Amino acid sequence: MIVSTGATDRVTITEVGPRDGLQALSVWIPTDRKIRLVSDLVATGLHDLEVASFVNPARVPQMRDGRDVLSSVPRSPGVRYAALVPNLRGFQDAQLVSPDRIAVVTAASEVFQQRNMNSTIEASFQRIEQIVDAARGGPMRIRGYISTVTDCPYSGPVDPARVAVIAERLLSLGCHEVCLGETIGKGTVATVSRMLDAVLAVVPADRLGLHFHDTYGQALANIIPGLERGIRMIDSSLAGLGGCPFAPGAAGNVATEDVVYLLRGLGLAPSPAVDLERIAFIGESFCHEFGLTHQSKAGHALMRAVRPNSLGE
Amino acid sequence: MIVSTGATDRVTITEVGPRDGLQALSVWIPTDRKIRLVSDLVATGLHDLEVASFVNPARVPQMRDGRDVLSSVPRSPGVRYAALVPNLRGFQDAQLVSPDRIAVVTAASEVFQQRNMNSTIEASFQRIEQIVDAARGGPMRIRGYISTVTDCPYSGPVDPARVAVIAERLLSLGCHEVCLGETIGKGTVATVSRMLDAVLAVVPADRLGLHFHDTYGQALANIIPGLERGIRMIDSSLAGLGGCPFAPGAAGNVATEDVVYLLRGLGLAPSPAVDLERIAFIGESFCHEFGLTHQSKAGHALMRAVRPNSLGE
Repeated sequence: MIVSTGATDRVTITEVGPRDGLQALSVWIPTDRKIRLVSDLVATGLHDLEVASFVNPARVPQMRDGRDVLSSVPRSPGVRYAALVPNLRGFQDAQLVSPDRIAVVTAASEVFQQRNMNSTIEASFQRIEQIVDAARGGPMRIRGYISTVTDCPYSGPVDPARVAVIAERLLSLGCHEVCLGETIGKGTVATVSRMLDAVLAVVPADRLGLHFHDTYGQALANIIPGLERGIRMIDSSLAGLGGCPFAPGAAGNVATEDVVYLLRGLGLAPSPAVDLERIAFIGESFCHEFGLTHQSKAGHALMRAVRPNSLGE
Repeated sequence: MIVSTGATDRVTITEVGPRDGLQALSVWIPTDRKIRLVSDLVATGLHDLEVASFVNPARVPQMRDGRDVLSSVPRSPGVRYAALVPNLRGFQDAQLVSPDRIAVVTAASEVFQQRNMNSTIEASFQRIEQIVDAARGGPMRIRGYISTVTDCPYSGPVDPARVAVIAERLLSLGCHEVCLGETIGKGTVATVSRMLDAVLAVVPADRLGLHFHDTYGQALANIIPGLERGIRMIDSSLAGLGGCPFAPGAAGNVATEDVVYLLRGLGLAPSPAVDLERIAFIGESFCHEFGLTHQSKAGHALMRAVRPNSLGE
């Protein structure tokens, strides 16, 4: 049972399409097009967006213009523009263009951390500590991401107790909030529920977010146990864009359109209202323009539903 | 929270792909191919399948060979082969080829019933009563379907109390079970939960099933409140096939692959075990053969995962 605590009990959606949704694309999205995508999304009422990452441009070439995106995107008051930073150098680069929030990343699976990040979890904590120290006293919020919270592509199921320990440590290091990344989309309501129960035993719900991928079609269902437990921060991606560059065709993030549709039904949609039909229009247009696979069923359905009007636009 | 009452607490999946999944296709599926599809699915361990409907062949030409399918498909012991019958004449046609169960249909929305069935709900009850009377004393189980249990495409939201009254009446007429059809896939966890609470106030969970469509990407999430409330009968369709012939491109039924993946995680998958990887293989092969859009993310993901082996098959 999902219980709202009142009219102000709303979910904050972090739109990660401009970062997680784009990072693995082989087609280059021009910088001004990225900026326009962000501005278009802000105009729908979304007020929390991850728009850049300051990673090695040789590894993730699509994100090499993060500085330009963040320095040029028109900032709307009350909107948070976030960036992912892998290390102190990335933080220093990001700092020059003042994101409102930064995302730092570790993993619950040691094997995943080592194979994908070429580092240990312990080393990732040292990097995070350096970043937090450098950010201290500044205006930026820090969100700590934990990858592979239920399943690791290499070592299988992940112990929920490990996730809890890591979440607690991220907060004790100075992260303002923790986001639980179900990186490979293999989790189910069962494994997600067990993981959440372990984490919620040590971290309050209002400091937790969910970042789920939809590889096995479970992402929206997996959000339900989070909402039932009072979690009110959810990452999602326009048109369900995203996916791992090392698993071609892998499904992306849970689609913003599908999540907003669900939340609207539950009375938990962000307030003031988000223009879901407009998000669907942006998603369809963007996918069409760059030949991307549109993965939001709500987006598809809404575009069919509104077509008679949108033809007149 | 989904609570299993023990090792025998399992979900019965009704595979509706061979009927609901195919009925709206414009490409003709040859009768022997339909039969092979059913047999292939039975070989995966699925033991409850809707394989035909005895409707007007002018309206649903794809289903005109229902008699041949049911008379020719090899019957496996312990497997139920079901057929939809719209009226007494359809029942009499079906009776000649002995389905194990029949599905009768009414709707919760009067406007839907009138526009799509050209009849009133009251008239549909009269037809159902004739069918139940004719079937009395025979071996066939009767499942009563209610369409549009949360939303009507013409008149909007549906009153949960109406659904409850209709469910109760179907049982009192002699139906053995009632299946709640969320026909247009617009419902959310909120509207589905309210509808289920109303119905469960008058009908026990063990006589209820769920039949959800995925138009807005909500179908799997919408199943969660049903499982939480103890419902253990779910309709699903191979590769998410299905969709209304009057809404081109509309998403189909919730995909069997996605549902089985979820249930396996929850320890509620049908027992003895269903071969999920084999279902995914059948779904991909069938869609490829007839150029159909494959709509199961779990199916896609499983086929990628097993490809190195299946190449050797």
